[in-house]
Amino acid sequence: MREVAVIGTGLSPWGEVWGASLRSLWSQAALAALADAGSDKVDSITVGSMSPGLFVGQEHLGALLADELGMPGVPALRVESACASGGVSLYTAFAQVASGLADVVLATGVEKMTDVSGDECTAALATAADGECEVFYGATFPGLYAMMARAHMERWGTTREQLAEVAVKNHKHGSMNPNAQYRQKITVVDVLRSAKVADPLNVLDCSPITDGAAAVVLADLATAKKLAKGRPIVKIAGIGVASDRIALHSRPDMTTIPATTEAAHRALAMAGRAIADVQVVELHDCFTIAEIVVLESLGLCPPGKGGEQAPSGRTALGGALPVNPSGGLKSKGHPVGATGIAQIVELSAQLRGQCGPRQVKDARVALAQNMGGTGASSVVTVLEVAS
Amino acid sequence: MREVAVIGTGLSPWGEVWGASLRSLWSQAALAALADAGSDKVDSITVGSMSPGLFVGQEHLGALLADELGMPGVPALRVESACASGGVSLYTAFAQVASGLADVVLATGVEKMTDVSGDECTAALATAADGECEVFYGATFPGLYAMMARAHMERWGTTREQLAEVAVKNHKHGSMNPNAQYRQKITVVDVLRSAKVADPLNVLDCSPITDGAAAVVLADLATAKKLAKGRPIVKIAGIGVASDRIALHSRPDMTTIPATTEAAHRALAMAGRAIADVQVVELHDCFTIAEIVVLESLGLCPPGKGGEQAPSGRTALGGALPVNPSGGLKSKGHPVGATGIAQIVELSAQLRGQCGPRQVKDARVALAQNMGGTGASSVVTVLEVAS
Repeated sequence: MREVAVIGTGLSPWGEVWGASLRSLWSQAALAALADAGSDKVDSITVGSMSPGLFVGQEHLGALLADELGMPGVPALRVESACASGGVSLYTAFAQVASGLADVVLATGVEKMTDVSGDECTAALATAADGECEVFYGATFPGLYAMMARAHMERWGTTREQLAEVAVKNHKHGSMNPNAQYRQKITVVDVLRSAKVADPLNVLDCSPITDGAAAVVLADLATAKKLAKGRPIVKIAGIGVASDRIALHSRPDMTTIPATTEAAHRALAMAGRAIADVQVVELHDCFTIAEIVVLESLGLCPPGKGGEQAPSGRTALGGALPVNPSGGLKSKGHPVGATGIAQIVELSAQLRGQCGPRQVKDARVALAQNMGGTGASSVVTVLEVAS
Repeated sequence: MREVAVIGTGLSPWGEVWGASLRSLWSQAALAALADAGSDKVDSITVGSMSPGLFVGQEHLGALLADELGMPGVPALRVESACASGGVSLYTAFAQVASGLADVVLATGVEKMTDVSGDECTAALATAADGECEVFYGATFPGLYAMMARAHMERWGTTREQLAEVAVKNHKHGSMNPNAQYRQKITVVDVLRSAKVADPLNVLDCSPITDGAAAVVLADLATAKKLAKGRPIVKIAGIGVASDRIALHSRPDMTTIPATTEAAHRALAMAGRAIADVQVVELHDCFTIAEIVVLESLGLCPPGKGGEQAPSGRTALGGALPVNPSGGLKSKGHPVGATGIAQIVELSAQLRGQCGPRQVKDARVALAQNMGGTGASSVVTVLEVAS
């Protein structure tokens, strides 16, 4: 299996971008990544997108976007695992380079979510849950994550304030990220006083609805070295994917996400690393409770101790293990199909030392965790500076 | 790059299957493929599906179906390139095995199309075209392929009867296939007298709306040899994917499909084969004109001579180059995401000599062509009996 590196990254504007279409957002990210890589040709394109059919009435994004980029002919396909669509887009591109089917692949993600009403958006997102066994009975994602939060509070004594501290930390990080959708700092009181969405989660516990795209250029290590021009080379040292029972009620324990544990196990084994080697993390904080549960599922803290991490300062910039220095889904935004790729954009910048005020000092090993549904699909990636 | 073989195949019932859900259809195909392979574990699952969001209100099929199969934990993802979703599912699974990320992969496709009305189905299928530049102006796929047919008739003198002969041949083949949706033989007069859909195409020039699923188990060659139990081993000798301008009006010539030409070039180069080596073909006859254009684009006949192939008997069973011995999309049915996998199911059976009355004698090299939209995505696969 050939070694694979990230040689370029790019983001579109993120937010409620009413002035740009899906294809325009995607092209901005793709062109930025190609410019950053110093490459104007690729052998293949992957597009992570959860539901362009329901959000903008357009499937077949592979060919559509290869065409938009002026690259008709290039193999192009879409990959989907709900909110982990970006992660599986990366995984699919990784396999193409690792196998030798392609030397240079543009791995991307995109979602245009604000062209439909709020209700339509909630309904489209709910197609990531089990339609027949969850959605039919009225479950939506805020409701499902609220049940996880309530279960965690009951079992481990996690407090309402600890949930809020995750949002406060991630907004503080996001305030230093010019690409973040919400750059204002917030307080615990702000979170507690914000509108109730699904008890115990308030609106400031939830990641926003976002339009946006992200792109990375992957290459085999030999090609990466040729194009490096003295910059540090960021290697994908390990990548793992795992699934789980899709319906939350089918799992024996709602306070942990086994697919994330398994995906991390696979990614770390491939990288030959232990979880303790990781110096900076981007993880899937679609709701505040998610960051708490994922920290535990990754083994970054003991079970039940996830709630203490943000209040203690450990996971803040300047702490022992900065988590979501980009601002995370909560502050940076969550265009669902783009998120898994955007995590790689942030961590590549961290490993290259390009993050300015939110730079994690001397970071050389980074981990990204991206998930779909209530964690039924998880993708974990270990990035390292190549020596 | 490791060599990859097909070690098991399976199909669900195909047709208007109102008594089975998407997950039930898929599981029947998957379980049949696993039983055929003699394997009860896989390292990974890929699901080709064009638009489960619009057809049945369910995305996130990777995790949903891994769960349904009783294999939660296994990496699982969905791949989409419109009606080439099955083909890119195969390609993605191939890359995972070729790279060494997985030894055994369940590569599948599924579409449940009859849970919506005819109009909703046409609208869902239209999301494979360019929404802003084709669909907005009223184009649907019968209309787009009708334009290709008219252009081919104008340029090359292809006749209305020659189009009909494709349907007659494929229904004759399908009459010998117990899995085909439509098993009745038809005549040229039947086709000419059937209801007009989009001039010059009548309803019997069009593939039907179908519910169905297909699955193949891929393995590296060493694993395949271990599980062969004396059966011939069917190798994926080559596979190629290509894209093109998505909108038909953006291409310089409507009478050819360059992405198919390019994908075939890549697949044959990987296999070390010439097109003349191919002894049996399954190709994407979504409309009768498509078979004619694809034969030319693959180089299986000279440009302009596609119309003569069916009437001459060359592409019929018993002819020099049997095309669509399964009955093709026209007779066998076209559950769009499943089609690209079902082609591999048929050709594997042909290469193993399991096709009974529709067996192509002594077939050792086979080619599958699957496409999305008006050919903006094409996947070509060369299968061979391993020596």
